[in-house]
Amino acid sequence: MSQTDGRELAPGDVPASGVDYSFVLASASPARRRVLADAGINPIVQVSGVDEEALTAALIAERGAIAPADLALALAQAKAQDVARHVAEQPRRLVVGCDSVFELDGIAYGKPLTSEVAIERITAMAGRTGLLHTGHWVVLDGREVGRTATTTVEFAPMRTAEIAAYVATGEPLQVAGSFTLDGRAAPYVRRIIGDPSNVLGISLPTMRDLVETLGVPWPALWGAATGAATG
Amino acid sequence: MSQTDGRELAPGDVPASGVDYSFVLASASPARRRVLADAGINPIVQVSGVDEEALTAALIAERGAIAPADLALALAQAKAQDVARHVAEQPRRLVVGCDSVFELDGIAYGKPLTSEVAIERITAMAGRTGLLHTGHWVVLDGREVGRTATTTVEFAPMRTAEIAAYVATGEPLQVAGSFTLDGRAAPYVRRIIGDPSNVLGISLPTMRDLVETLGVPWPALWGAATGAATG
Repeated sequence: MSQTDGRELAPGDVPASGVDYSFVLASASPARRRVLADAGINPIVQVSGVDEEALTAALIAERGAIAPADLALALAQAKAQDVARHVAEQPRRLVVGCDSVFELDGIAYGKPLTSEVAIERITAMAGRTGLLHTGHWVVLDGREVGRTATTTVEFAPMRTAEIAAYVATGEPLQVAGSFTLDGRAAPYVRRIIGDPSNVLGISLPTMRDLVETLGVPWPALWGAATGAATG
Repeated sequence: MSQTDGRELAPGDVPASGVDYSFVLASASPARRRVLADAGINPIVQVSGVDEEALTAALIAERGAIAPADLALALAQAKAQDVARHVAEQPRRLVVGCDSVFELDGIAYGKPLTSEVAIERITAMAGRTGLLHTGHWVVLDGREVGRTATTTVEFAPMRTAEIAAYVATGEPLQVAGSFTLDGRAAPYVRRIIGDPSNVLGISLPTMRDLVETLGVPWPALWGAATGAATG
């Protein structure tokens, strides 16, 4: 599900400024925006019109079953392509779609949405190990490339009252996997194996690899999309 | 170098609010303050008077050599104890000292301070794997406990021009190991094994373990030190 169409980058191939590129993030996630801003990229946010539940149901109907990592990539691709179709044509405009799912015992979990579901899921996760998959899809000047990154996440045991206290803060309700590595759940994540930004919703080393495949050296994006550095 | 003196916590042992505790961070590091704030803790900052270079030299003179993980713990202990001696006596007041060192090929590296040193170190690190050690020391009501946490950090290869562009941002000059996992270096960290907050300068799962050893359930600290939640 990946397509590469790049050119080789030379060792000195780093422009002085990123003002030539714009970076459109096809996601409303504040966590993704923050990861990008911390890394020097201030994206334009343009949420896609993709109906994730309908697309997931269609993919399962079509294939019989879909692995969580493949589901994340298919959703990321759909979001990026939808936004790329709807924003104005412009050269050097990256459109980036992402989708995160948390896998425990082979089952994919998205946002819990309610406190009851969050408590149930966190109780199942505590003391155990799951996989956080984030699909990434990048469209640039009509070319496109995508990849899912996977990070192993090991949770500490949690007391019943701690789970209730964490859920009562509201933090886990709107996040894939019902936990926030950049928030109050961090003390309960004993260890990860992989890229931490992937757990937050957008893997920066994966993004670097993908944009380089499209011929863009990463520092060329610093300051994108507005030309104003945020760091 | 660790001392435990706690009581058992019961499954329901989570107070509703953290206003009874104060949290004094013996460090000026903005990264540590941000990690704590993101996790719901707003510490009082009180920088220690410890001369790190002199203490490091004294430890090496005394022991002949000191492992990077032990050095980090000794410096964290010295900072916490110094601040605990100088702030006013108060019950339920945690004083926390931390120190981070980056180990590559068995050698401990602190802050590079100058661009020349940062370029040299990052060039040596790129494409290789190092260890980020953070020592933690907690003093509470006259009892104390400490531990070093270690995270493995794998760097992607970097082009010469990328290293120069990153160093030119100034970000790596004041951080142990010459890289920022929460900044522009994140795309160049392919993978970590361990706790990401440890790489940022204070391991939250380690802090949770340490304060629980002292009888404090972690959510009791939410809102500390000011009683005002930051999340």
